[in-house]
Amino acid sequence: MTPDGILETVLYADDLPAAKTFYRDMLGLELYSEEPGRHVFFRCGDLMLLIFDPGVTQTPSSSSSLPVPAHGALGPGHVCFRADAAGIAAWCDRLHGAGVDIEADFEWPQGGRSIYFRDPAGNSLEFAELRIWGLQ
Amino acid sequence: MTPDGILETVLYADDLPAAKTFYRDMLGLELYSEEPGRHVFFRCGDLMLLIFDPGVTQTPSSSSSLPVPAHGALGPGHVCFRADAAGIAAWCDRLHGAGVDIEADFEWPQGGRSIYFRDPAGNSLEFAELRIWGLQ
Repeated sequence: MTPDGILETVLYADDLPAAKTFYRDMLGLELYSEEPGRHVFFRCGDLMLLIFDPGVTQTPSSSSSLPVPAHGALGPGHVCFRADAAGIAAWCDRLHGAGVDIEADFEWPQGGRSIYFRDPAGNSLEFAELRIWGLQ
Repeated sequence: MTPDGILETVLYADDLPAAKTFYRDMLGLELYSEEPGRHVFFRCGDLMLLIFDPGVTQTPSSSSSLPVPAHGALGPGHVCFRADAAGIAAWCDRLHGAGVDIEADFEWPQGGRSIYFRDPAGNSLEFAELRIWGLQ
């Protein structure tokens, strides 16, 4: 047995309004739903990117019908978005034009470019080509 | 502009051998590569699940050619895997049979079942149906 795929990717941020603005307006993700003070959820293709305030979700749910387990990590996490070579060049221009610092920009030995930057919470974000993982 | 999709999902664990055994042997993920003491990388469909020791990756890379930025979160993160209803029932049996505690198991109001359990590092893992997000 193996999972069919990944459905939810998670990052944490204590300033959810800043995260909402960044992921929606800077990265163009589709805002799916939000619960102010707890989370903001985005759709990215057939996956969900969920951003939680860890100070809230570290406390277990008190709902008996929806007993969602506690989670919540502190410190910078990481998510990588997929883009082709032209897309990475375009994202580089867009981020640079908006004053977002490109923290790193390099080619991997196996081929493929990655660019790295930070979200407002300090999470490390990346755009990379599929081929850095031998995927097509 | 919007990202083409998500390429890498990340969790953190300080016991990488335990993580390797759990994700490979219990969840059946394809081991892609590892660097003992730093990370273990899995492929899951067209995404990568990357598991890092945050005590190591919180230190920036010293490589001038591959200046991978520092990241590394502490505390329980979360990832959800995709499964259909029959798959979730099968995973429930498999996890239960292996002595992995199912921490929560419920139907969402909008339809769709989720089961939750923990990896050896305490990260919250979930199997859920696509329809909990209105996806098909």
